[in-house]
Amino acid sequence: MKIGLMGLGTVGSGVVHLIEENGDAIEKKIGQKIEIKKILVKDPEKKRIKEAQGKITINPYDILDDPEIDVVVEVMGKEHPALEYMKEAILRGKNVVTANKEVIAKHGKELIKLASENNVNLLYEASVGGGIPIIRPLKSCLAANKIHEIKGILNGTTNYILTEMKSRGLSFEGVLKEAQQKGYAELDPTDDVDGFDAARKLAILCALSFNKYVMPDNIYTKGIRTISKEDIKYADELGFTIKLIAFGKLDEDEKLEAWVHPVMISKKNPLNGVNGVYNAILVEGNAVGRLMFYGQGAGMMPTASAVVADVIDVANHIPTQNGYDDAVMKDIVDTVSKYYIRIIALDKPGVMSKVTGVLGQEGISLVSVVQKETLGEYAEIVLITHNALTKNLFDALDEIEKLKEVDKVASVIRVEGEE
Amino acid sequence: MKIGLMGLGTVGSGVVHLIEENGDAIEKKIGQKIEIKKILVKDPEKKRIKEAQGKITINPYDILDDPEIDVVVEVMGKEHPALEYMKEAILRGKNVVTANKEVIAKHGKELIKLASENNVNLLYEASVGGGIPIIRPLKSCLAANKIHEIKGILNGTTNYILTEMKSRGLSFEGVLKEAQQKGYAELDPTDDVDGFDAARKLAILCALSFNKYVMPDNIYTKGIRTISKEDIKYADELGFTIKLIAFGKLDEDEKLEAWVHPVMISKKNPLNGVNGVYNAILVEGNAVGRLMFYGQGAGMMPTASAVVADVIDVANHIPTQNGYDDAVMKDIVDTVSKYYIRIIALDKPGVMSKVTGVLGQEGISLVSVVQKETLGEYAEIVLITHNALTKNLFDALDEIEKLKEVDKVASVIRVEGEE
Repeated sequence: MKIGLMGLGTVGSGVVHLIEENGDAIEKKIGQKIEIKKILVKDPEKKRIKEAQGKITINPYDILDDPEIDVVVEVMGKEHPALEYMKEAILRGKNVVTANKEVIAKHGKELIKLASENNVNLLYEASVGGGIPIIRPLKSCLAANKIHEIKGILNGTTNYILTEMKSRGLSFEGVLKEAQQKGYAELDPTDDVDGFDAARKLAILCALSFNKYVMPDNIYTKGIRTISKEDIKYADELGFTIKLIAFGKLDEDEKLEAWVHPVMISKKNPLNGVNGVYNAILVEGNAVGRLMFYGQGAGMMPTASAVVADVIDVANHIPTQNGYDDAVMKDIVDTVSKYYIRIIALDKPGVMSKVTGVLGQEGISLVSVVQKETLGEYAEIVLITHNALTKNLFDALDEIEKLKEVDKVASVIRVEGEE
Repeated sequence: MKIGLMGLGTVGSGVVHLIEENGDAIEKKIGQKIEIKKILVKDPEKKRIKEAQGKITINPYDILDDPEIDVVVEVMGKEHPALEYMKEAILRGKNVVTANKEVIAKHGKELIKLASENNVNLLYEASVGGGIPIIRPLKSCLAANKIHEIKGILNGTTNYILTEMKSRGLSFEGVLKEAQQKGYAELDPTDDVDGFDAARKLAILCALSFNKYVMPDNIYTKGIRTISKEDIKYADELGFTIKLIAFGKLDEDEKLEAWVHPVMISKKNPLNGVNGVYNAILVEGNAVGRLMFYGQGAGMMPTASAVVADVIDVANHIPTQNGYDDAVMKDIVDTVSKYYIRIIALDKPGVMSKVTGVLGQEGISLVSVVQKETLGEYAEIVLITHNALTKNLFDALDEIEKLKEVDKVASVIRVEGEE
């Protein structure tokens, strides 16, 4: 089987290494040799790994129009021109394996239809959870289940930042800067820390779990920029750990609840112990109950592991999947949760009563109220609510921010219920 | 697609319920209806679930010789006559799906060869880890990896007992009796508490992970009967939790290390937090790094979930696997580990020095020695060794048991190294 590799960055180099290193064992397993025939790069002058010698091209049609190439492996990243190359490959009857979460999240429905029409496979295990097997288990192992709910830590950078903030008592900015220096975080960290990367992966999981297609832009997404070391300390005192959670659930009325939000996770939940760059996905099915899949959600070799597994599946002629329905979304304001809120306000008599008064007017009752020490003329007020309709909470927070004594609502974190 | 179901106990009833409940969704996914045509039972007089009406037979050949039946689902349990029925089904060109860990562990190699020769599928996802997807991920998602090591909590009954002993400070016998009353443990609990059930599952995982076939009887197996509440308390003080671990590793010289043994698992290891009837399997691959699969390892609906997923795979014509090599085993005495040892000895001067002297003669050095309070005329000595060759440890323990001051070596638990 001959492969055309598009992209020779971190993941692409991993794919080359892996086929080099484990090629013999793979050949023994599937009864044929996997060979990378051509590799598409942008800059032909750049120094490349030695295994790539003699295979480099800058012309995508060297791969697309090569009749010997059965599988196009797209690991360039970014939406364009990866999307266009994948379409061209499918239209030419080639199977496509990709690690591109952005393309699959935004255009998966269209690409899957196109692949089905052209009788080729489109596989994308590496697009969610790096090396963690999650796409294939959802498609195959859990095929007999109606899936109720998925809850995942889908972004390694944010989980690393939150883990370091907790274990070393550091600020968000401090850990982010360090992570950027070490190469764990991008220089423009928006995709990770603001939750967009997790939202794309969540969109892919919702399609597979619930057969409902949602564009990542339609997923309510809140990242971890506003999480302070105080939030993490309070959470710990309360028996929780703050994680950036991607959540999906199909209601009985077929509405899809899907959001990315910081959540306080209790110690009883296995997601609580998922630290550093590890990812994990909890899945609840009506027959199987609760499952968790855990592993490295990114990195050269773990991601390459998933890509090459897909290539092997193509060799085994595993059939492709069906299309999805468009999701009807449940608005975030219609969801119900306990909330943790940290407010910075003037340290004056009567402020607490004004703040809690606003919440009371919106019908929100409180589990606990903590007024922490003053910071100069300001004080930090920490509140935890009982289950509240998010619309009421958002309205109350708007009102609270308008109070002249209040500087800002500094943190809003969902709190998970009993496990 | 028409199914012949062999067995209508817990798992069989679960399969019937699941196909009834999720049948429409499954039909939508795979484009054909799954129908249970006949059900083999031992006692035709017994009252059965209403969905089974009109399908019951006591003659296996009603299923084996029915040309309309594509798939035989064997959920009778026990080695015989399940093995013979499966062979007959394969020889008649029928696909076989089974949850039978005993048959697959002992006869998997032969059955897989027979299935391959007869061009049918033999699938057994439910034989390990109940509903946890582990067989298919090992075969497919990790196909690009060389797997180094597997480490699992594979038996729910023992994990439940150990969890209850820890959380409620109870003795092994006390929790076992309670578990038997609740139906969580068999009246003859040997298969579970002595580790034989875990050893069978480990044999299946070793075949899939390392391509090495080992009979369960050749796996060194030690259960949890000798674990006392004191052991659990000491482990906790040291930052560990005691788990019954099934371990497999292929050495560089292709020797298979495989054992079932109580192990002290550190808090940093994700297996530490796997409690109650949950199972989990850690897998280390050379590309993917460390993965964990977590879920309910038994129970009616989780196991049925795995069985029906296999049936769906048959419908999708997923190809079957290759055969395995026979394993060359690494003897348990050639393995190296830290050990925790609890000894009951007369509370006399000089006993400690005799005990530690024997260990020293065998070249075993100690991390710590604790002499706990006396129990009447006896005292409890708790030792933790540095890494020791198990042969030396076993020799030393033999010597120690011969000392006239020593009543017995009460517990021997492996201690995992740094994670």
